[in-house]
Amino acid sequence: MKLSISVEETLERQQRFFSKLQDKQINCAVLFSSTDIFYLTRFHFIPTERPTAFFIDPQGKTHLFVPALEKDYAAELACVDEFHIYPEFPGLRHPMEFFKDILIDAGFEDKNVGFDFDGYGSPYGYRGPRLSEVINAEFISIYAWVEEMRFIKSSTEIELIKESCRWGNLAHRYLQKYSKEGLSEVEVSSKASHDATLAMVDALGSDYKPHGKTAFAGFRGQIGKLSAYPHVVTQNATMKRGDNLVTWGAADVWGYQSELERTMFVKEVSPEQEKYFNLMYEAQEIAFKNIKPGATTSSVDEEVQRFVDDSGIRRYVPHHTGHAIGLMMHEAPFFDLGDHTIMEPGMVFTVEPGIFVQGLGGFRHSDTVLVTEDGMEMLTYYPRDLNSLIC
Amino acid sequence: MKLSISVEETLERQQRFFSKLQDKQINCAVLFSSTDIFYLTRFHFIPTERPTAFFIDPQGKTHLFVPALEKDYAAELACVDEFHIYPEFPGLRHPMEFFKDILIDAGFEDKNVGFDFDGYGSPYGYRGPRLSEVINAEFISIYAWVEEMRFIKSSTEIELIKESCRWGNLAHRYLQKYSKEGLSEVEVSSKASHDATLAMVDALGSDYKPHGKTAFAGFRGQIGKLSAYPHVVTQNATMKRGDNLVTWGAADVWGYQSELERTMFVKEVSPEQEKYFNLMYEAQEIAFKNIKPGATTSSVDEEVQRFVDDSGIRRYVPHHTGHAIGLMMHEAPFFDLGDHTIMEPGMVFTVEPGIFVQGLGGFRHSDTVLVTEDGMEMLTYYPRDLNSLIC
Repeated sequence: MKLSISVEETLERQQRFFSKLQDKQINCAVLFSSTDIFYLTRFHFIPTERPTAFFIDPQGKTHLFVPALEKDYAAELACVDEFHIYPEFPGLRHPMEFFKDILIDAGFEDKNVGFDFDGYGSPYGYRGPRLSEVINAEFISIYAWVEEMRFIKSSTEIELIKESCRWGNLAHRYLQKYSKEGLSEVEVSSKASHDATLAMVDALGSDYKPHGKTAFAGFRGQIGKLSAYPHVVTQNATMKRGDNLVTWGAADVWGYQSELERTMFVKEVSPEQEKYFNLMYEAQEIAFKNIKPGATTSSVDEEVQRFVDDSGIRRYVPHHTGHAIGLMMHEAPFFDLGDHTIMEPGMVFTVEPGIFVQGLGGFRHSDTVLVTEDGMEMLTYYPRDLNSLIC
Repeated sequence: MKLSISVEETLERQQRFFSKLQDKQINCAVLFSSTDIFYLTRFHFIPTERPTAFFIDPQGKTHLFVPALEKDYAAELACVDEFHIYPEFPGLRHPMEFFKDILIDAGFEDKNVGFDFDGYGSPYGYRGPRLSEVINAEFISIYAWVEEMRFIKSSTEIELIKESCRWGNLAHRYLQKYSKEGLSEVEVSSKASHDATLAMVDALGSDYKPHGKTAFAGFRGQIGKLSAYPHVVTQNATMKRGDNLVTWGAADVWGYQSELERTMFVKEVSPEQEKYFNLMYEAQEIAFKNIKPGATTSSVDEEVQRFVDDSGIRRYVPHHTGHAIGLMMHEAPFFDLGDHTIMEPGMVFTVEPGIFVQGLGGFRHSDTVLVTEDGMEMLTYYPRDLNSLIC
């Protein structure tokens, strides 16, 4: 089974990126984003205090600038024409001093140079000069250009996301199966994630090389009343009869993500819980109906927010309807009142209008969907109806 | 059991931060770093496309700026005087427009304003203006100021790191116990992490609220010849007799980290493997002997690198000797030739000189140590000798 983006597709991405630069009279470019470096080179790495950069020179040749400790690993993975190595950060000579010499050699001086960030950034103790301080050139921000290339997924990317949905579904199935009155959320989510990971790795075979994470399901603290906090973090709660649970199932497949969330109930559902569950369900249906190529992403959120207002639940709805997903858990564009991106076939989004009632709980399903030629295709396939979600 | 930083200690941090600003004639400040926001407010959150900021006004009052979906959760956790909420990103009005009005109301105009970053940044689809574009003030970079406050750990922080070492040790013990010829690394590491997590959560009791991660141990792909890549990511390898394994055990305790790494061998050790193991062991001993207050962090790396040169293994040693650790996995300062920070009691570091021989494997132990009044204390306590590390 071939669960990766091919060298050919990677080279085609580089070509598209270079053409886009040329269209805007930009001669060459530097990228520091680890996600964009992976997208353009296949080099997956752990970003640390040590600067790493991809650059494309005025001749269209591609380069990777990496610390010595990544030398052999980068050489094995990355599709680039040249590698440049520096000893260490901070080192006796700062990495940006090496980078300066390398960029000058590559002909960057006095050129129009695109960059995503004006220098390397990292929360892991990095300090260093801006890129614009070390070489003389005309700098132009191309922030988010590669992210915009990532908006429309190729058929292989869609296959990887579908594979992610499969293992997120299994992890979630185990999560539901193991959820029981009296158990702690950590116990249930750790066991579900463990069992799904083993199944995923055995099913995909030893040729499949996961990048860090595999399959995962959990609650992120959204148990009982705590589920009313949309982004609570793990809280080690114990499940009680009548609690509502807001879940999360996912898997990383060669860097690609999907998102599956369900609102579940422990043993019984009160009429009040059922009311908000049904409103949430309906809001999600409204979103699905409005996803189609040619319309704006804001139009989807507008329809959902209109329903929210009409239902009198404005104060319980604190966030937009969804976001794009791919190499990152959240990506632009958004199903948001202020995002007027035109939907196109190949875009992949989460659809997750949420209702959060303090003192009662949270109500949110999230599904991952693909924009098609004439509407959308649901990529996640876990049951959405109330009766299927009582555990 | 009280496994957290108290409100009092948090307020004392804010006071120290404000005094430091005043000493430099900075009237007020804005911080976007999620780690520093947690450090200064106790508010732990998942950073997304939605801007979040901490600010301290010219009167020394503390504020948090959060999206609507974090409103109630932030109010429960954060020690700040005031909360400011905006609806959503991107929203009908950009969050930075709300932030502008709030900062003007708080008296930031025409003041000396410190910031860690000139605006919010996120790889999750965020776009927005710089902070210096939205208000008129004299901006001064205070990048890494809070990180520098974090250099010296308080007694409670040291207790949390020791607690982290305990559960990292258990996860690693399980990892060694479960490692066996023919098993896949994913299977072994997932089971070790799962079992250690359950033990940790049961031992600490339901009052303990983990922030996301709990206990963990794995190989990150460093199995057999792949262990020669210092930062390989999970590769789903199967363990074979004679493989060397480079491991990683850790636990998150209220945000605090530790690091434990060991070089282990499956069943048998070749003379060549033993040779590099012994050199690595000796290099780590040299580092330990040189850790003491008053000396520079570079002096530790100098002694290790001198030993590396004297032993003729320069080409196998691609990285520095260690880094500080605390709320981040890697923090400044570094045991690096170019980092001349003076060691002080209360600093916590990893000590991890590594030898990586392509075609053979990697050799690295990592221990977490505390600088004391007269030397250092080892916080990790897993056996380091060869005989204890054959599985």
